[in-house]
This record gives sequence, structure tokens and C-alpha cells, in this order.
Amino acid sequence: MAGPGVNVSRIITLTTDFGLSDPYVGIMKGVIFSINPEASVVDISHQIKAGSIIHAAGLIREAYHFFPEGTVHVVVVDPGVGSERRPIVVKTEGHLFVGPDNGLFSPFIAASQHTKIIHITEKRYFRPDVSPTFHGRDIFAPVAGHLSLGVDPREMGPTISDPVSIALPKSAKKGNILLGEVVRVDHFGNLITNIRRDEIEQFTGTRRPVISVRDIVVEGVSRTYGDVRVGEVLALVGSSGYLEIAVNLGRACDRLGLNEDEYTGVEVEVKRTR
Amino acid sequence: MAGPGVNVSRIITLTTDFGLSDPYVGIMKGVIFSINPEASVVDISHQIKAGSIIHAAGLIREAYHFFPEGTVHVVVVDPGVGSERRPIVVKTEGHLFVGPDNGLFSPFIAASQHTKIIHITEKRYFRPDVSPTFHGRDIFAPVAGHLSLGVDPREMGPTISDPVSIALPKSAKKGNILLGEVVRVDHFGNLITNIRRDEIEQFTGTRRPVISVRDIVVEGVSRTYGDVRVGEVLALVGSSGYLEIAVNLGRACDRLGLNEDEYTGVEVEVKRTR
Amino acid sequence: MAGPGVNVSRIITLTTDFGLSDPYVGIMKGVIFSINPEASVVDISHQIKAGSIIHAAGLIREAYHFFPEGTVHVVVVDPGVGSERRPIVVKTEGHLFVGPDNGLFSPFIAASQHTKIIHITEKRYFRPDVSPTFHGRDIFAPVAGHLSLGVDPREMGPTISDPVSIALPKSAKKGNILLGEVVRVDHFGNLITNIRRDEIEQFTGTRRPVISVRDIVVEGVSRTYGDVRVGEVLALVGSSGYLEIAVNLGRACDRLGLNEDEYTGVEVEVKRTR
Repeated sequence: MAGPGVNVSRIITLTTDFGLSDPYVGIMKGVIFSINPEASVVDISHQIKAGSIIHAAGLIREAYHFFPEGTVHVVVVDPGVGSERRPIVVKTEGHLFVGPDNGLFSPFIAASQHTKIIHITEKRYFRPDVSPTFHGRDIFAPVAGHLSLGVDPREMGPTISDPVSIALPKSAKKGNILLGEVVRVDHFGNLITNIRRDEIEQFTGTRRPVISVRDIVVEGVSRTYGDVRVGEVLALVGSSGYLEIAVNLGRACDRLGLNEDEYTGVEVEVKRTR
Repeated sequence: MAGPGVNVSRIITLTTDFGLSDPYVGIMKGVIFSINPEASVVDISHQIKAGSIIHAAGLIREAYHFFPEGTVHVVVVDPGVGSERRPIVVKTEGHLFVGPDNGLFSPFIAASQHTKIIHITEKRYFRPDVSPTFHGRDIFAPVAGHLSLGVDPREMGPTISDPVSIALPKSAKKGNILLGEVVRVDHFGNLITNIRRDEIEQFTGTRRPVISVRDIVVEGVSRTYGDVRVGEVLALVGSSGYLEIAVNLGRACDRLGLNEDEYTGVEVEVKRTR
Repeated sequence: MAGPGVNVSRIITLTTDFGLSDPYVGIMKGVIFSINPEASVVDISHQIKAGSIIHAAGLIREAYHFFPEGTVHVVVVDPGVGSERRPIVVKTEGHLFVGPDNGLFSPFIAASQHTKIIHITEKRYFRPDVSPTFHGRDIFAPVAGHLSLGVDPREMGPTISDPVSIALPKSAKKGNILLGEVVRVDHFGNLITNIRRDEIEQFTGTRRPVISVRDIVVEGVSRTYGDVRVGEVLALVGSSGYLEIAVNLGRACDRLGLNEDEYTGVEVEVKRTR
């Protein structure tokens, strides 16, 4: 955990489903700066789908390792705010994570043997009055402020070993098909799947993959968008190592004829040429 | 005012109706950093309804006190830009506010006896060429930069005592009804009203409140969203101390069948059970 | 170029077409802070129209000179990512620009004789694994981090003299008409044109200009929005020195009856009264 010899950066990241119209994100920053005026606060996204723990868990897993060791990552997607769910600090892979114990961090917790999880019970690290509806402001922001000052998480409460665990959807081999799903549509309309580069390579071997998502069928995995003609569909392994379906200078999502809230979970099939 | 013994933080907050697509907010930050490279600039919101002084006044009143003393809050919602309205600095409650004298700060000005208001007339704190259409860039950003360096606002112009005053809509008791209104719909679709916790408690006493907004009728005030079943409507006192109407894991605003620009001002009635 | 005697600020600006929902912008900041923890990163806009080099070139040209000398401006609008187009650093007017060599900076390159352009070839300033689809993260962010630490761009690769050049649309005199076009619709619905103040003044001389955009016809150039009645159309020279068509407390763009993607390039005519 933090303490002697541990490198705590002054950087705090924020990931929430609060949007940017309301003052909620700014208020959290005010609370952080009131505790650590030297903090450097970075927004990862405040456009998480309201209450979607899976969406937030995927995003923070994708982003955190690009930050310096010792960064404090606050994630507040908290449909159970005010209920008995625990506030926690997770220390793993040299990073600190702060948020509700609802599964947000279980992808990291599972990945490392050296993970420590603290149930934050010491109220001296909270704001004096904790509301039942805005723990981002009253618990998680002030705890992050104190962590960024070098407070050892072990001073904040007892270690626990039974965190809430959720599973991100995984791809699976079913006979001659590698089956995954769309987990996100990004700003460019690319369909981001949960199929990793090594899964495809292992599955197809020396043959070529044939990827289909509903009516879209693509043979082969391109290196970059410009490898096909403008307006043409392609498949590639995106910058985070996952298969995605894209259109060169276009929006792949528009090819599916779905509403915005219907993309997530759409099946993606990978087959092999003979 | 600022000066010997006054704590000026390096934090500057920005609240505008500029949106995030155009370069206007970034340009204001460039101007601030050109004057104080050590400033720390925090966005509160740039999604204020275009020209809505009341919306901005409510938001900055909700947010400012979560920042450290000495913070400089710049608010630019300025439908009269380029006319004769005065640029002002307001010092109250240990915070500094900068913006046009159009009522943006009157909720604070009214609240404290120790408020000082300065009409900014000293052009040496402006950018050299002041455009008639972007005082956020040419007056308010540079003034904020200088304030964050510790310049005493009294050096910026004369004290005034006749600021423009606007009233935020207030709740009122009418016979057996406590009458308020919706002032904002937040990112989660919650209907935020102007009825304070103490007003409800005083009104209902030992009886239970019955809250109605058009077709929605709720009995009792819940503690948090999860106190009712998923999809059910509830009333609660939100994190800023005002009554709000919400739906557990849903959007209360969708229950009213109104367009986005029709929510503000919708009547909220509180009655008492017998 | 940078080096002894050159003032490098710790400020880095970001302009992209990445939007704010995905973690891409936050990831770039993580990479920057991993190299220079003291950097101060400012967003100019992440709402550039997907792949629009012209849109980005216009925006960064409008914004950069409000930042302190020595600022590093990263612009990533990169439809050719992963192809053979070169990554470059441009030094001009005391500022540093980093991005793909696709014309983004040609408006500055043309403007100054003292511009230096470096083709970034030294891989030690990149992230160890460069993906073919996210050079913002793997090349431009780390290069900006190193520049903000004072690395001389000449250490990053050879000077080049054949950068890709694009022309921003220019206004032109055609007989008795000064002809320009709409280049952007801003958050307030104002139609921003490419006609500069001095071009109008030179064209109209002692006579009054008559400006028309489709059905809209306005005589005279106002000083500020409030010079006409609420809801009335006006023309004025905006804060960046270009003619714009606006409506006092309204949205000029709504008067044209066009879809959002149809504004750009709409013709603007300036005639003269007799």
C-alpha cells in the first residue's frame, strides 16, 4: 500500500456518469482542491451510460495504465448510492482506485495477486456532512484528495477480501465460431468488441478470419482505416487491442440500423476461411 | 478585500454559456495562463442555457462554497455584452466573483453584510484591445488572472453599492399549499425544485408531505434513490438541500411529456396529509 | 528552435475530433503526465468535425495566439493515421505545433518566414509500441510531453521544407460583390464567415455594406448584438475579426432552414449601397 517508499503522484482522474451540464464534476474538483491545492485533476469521461457499471469498468480498465504510477483514479457510477454498499480503495498495479464496491474494479482485482482492498470507514477523510445521494462529493473526492497527499489507504479502514465482483462479457469459442459482442460504439461510430487480438490469432491460425455483425461481413483484419476505400467497411484491432468494425471516413454503427441504446451486446461472430 | 493577510488561491473557476465545441473557453484559459502561468482553472459548466442569468446564478451559488477560500469564480453569461453594463468584482464569503453586473451574483450579494463590489474601470487589467462582443476573453479572464496573482480588487476601480439585482424564483405558502417550481432538470433527468429542506419540514410539521408536479404525485420524502423500486417515482432532498423529483434508475423528466425547454418554471405543489 | 534562450511554457493545448465520451483524450493526458508531471493541459476543442482538417486548422489559428509564447499545441485530426503521412513539429510565431503533416498547420506555415518544420523520426520520443490507429496517444502526446520539458525539436528529426499545404477558403471580389462563405456555426447559432474586417472596409469604403446569406439580407455592420432589437438579424465583426451573421438573443442558423451539416460553405455576399 502507500506509505514509505510508495510513489504517490499528484494526479487524480475522474470517471463518472454525471455529464458536463450540471455543476457536479466541478464541485468534486472543488472538494479535491480544498484538500490538496496542488492536485492535477484529469477527466477520463463523464459520459458513462447512467448507472452502467460495466461501461465504466471497461473504460477505466482501458485508460488507467497510461497514467503515471501512483495516480488516484476516482470512478463514481453508483446506482446504489446511500445504501449499505461499501466505499473502497483498491491498490493494484501501482495505481489507486476509489469508488463504490459495486464491481467497478473487479476486472483489476481479478488480474493481480498483489491487490489490496480497503473498506473506507474512517469518517475523518470524508466531508463533515455526508449526504445520502452524492458520495462522489462527500466521500470519494475527499478520500482521493487525502490519498494524493500521501495518506496510507490502510489508515482509512480495514482490509477486505470479499469485494463485489462482476464479469465483463467475454468472448467464447463455440464449435467453429469465435463469439463475442459489441461493448461500445465510440465517437467515430466504430463498433468496439470484446474480442482480443490474441484470441483471433489463436482461433484463425494460418487461415483468414471472416467477421460478421448482423448484415455486415468482412474478410480479413486490416492494419488501419485507410487500408480500404473511403466508405468501405473493415475490421481491425483497435488501439486498445480489441477487434473493432469500422468504416473508412464513415460511421460503422450507421450500417446496423439500430438505435443508440441497442448496440451494446450485439453479437459478433468470427469464422475461418477454409 | 484582498491584500495583506488575504488568502488568494491559484484556483479560477469558469461558468459560461459558451459550450465546448468552439474555442472560446480554451481561449479564455490561454489569456489566464498568459497572466498567471501557475493558475489552476476548473470548469464548472459551459452548458448554461444561452443568456440565462437565472440558470447561471443558481449554478454558481450551488457550487462556489465547495472551493477553497480565495478562489476566483468567473461567470460569463452576458446577453448585454458591449452595452454600458458594468464589469464587476464581488468579494463575499471569502470568495471572489468576476463577471458582468447583470444580476449573476445578486443571490450572494443579498446574503452577506460584508460583501464588497468593485466596478472594474482600470483598463490596465484588461487585454489591450477590448472587443465589443467577447468580454470573457478581453476583460473577465485577464481580471481573474490578475486577481489570482493577488492584485487587490480595490486597485481595479471604485466600490459601488447599486449592483443590478435579480431574484431567483422563491417558494411560497399559499393557504394549505407550499408552492415552488422546477428550476433545472439535471443529467439524470431529476427535476430540481426551489423548495428547501427546512421549508418542507416547517410546512408539514408532524404530517407527511404530498408532492405533485402535474400528473406526478408522491407521498413522503425518501432518503435516497434506492428507497423505492426500480422505475418508481420518488421525492427526496437532493445533495444541495433542495427538493427533487426522481425515478430510481430512471428519468423523472420523461414522465412529464414536455419538451426540453418547457421544464423550467413548471409548478411544484407540496400539500400535507391530514 | 527551442534550446538555449527559448522560453518553453509548461502549457500544452489539445485540439481533436475525439469527442468527450470515449477515454481517448484522457489517455493522451495520461501519456503527457507520465512524461511531464508538471504539464498544464488545456482543451481547445474535441468537437472538431470528424476528419475535418479545415475545421481544425481554422480553430487552432483562431486560438493559439492567446496562449503564452512557448505553448505546445497538439492537433490530432488525422484521417490518414497509420499511412505514410509524416508526424511533424512546427515552430512559428513563438509557438510549437505537433500533429500529422496533412495541412493542419499550413495557415501558419504560410504566414511567417521564420517557420521551422521538423519531421519527427526519432522513435525514442514515441511510446514504445506505436499502434497504427492512435498516433495521438503513441506519437503526438509523448512528443508534446518531451517538448514541454524543453527538448529541442531539432533533436527529433530532420528539418523539411515540403509540408503538405491546404488552403482555407478565402473571400474574393467578383465585380461589385465581395464573396465569402460560412466556415462555422458557433454554439450561439452565429454564422461565422471567412470575410475579414479589413476586406469589408476596403471593399465598401465610404458606402454601407449590404450582406446577404440566402434569404437573409442585412444592411450595415453593427458593433454588438444588442444594437438591434431582440430577435432581429444583424451582421457584425466578431471577436476574431471575421464577419458574422447573428440574431440578438436568438440563433441565426435557424433562419436558414438547413441541416447541421449543410451550413459550411454556404455563400455570403457583400454588396455596397449606392
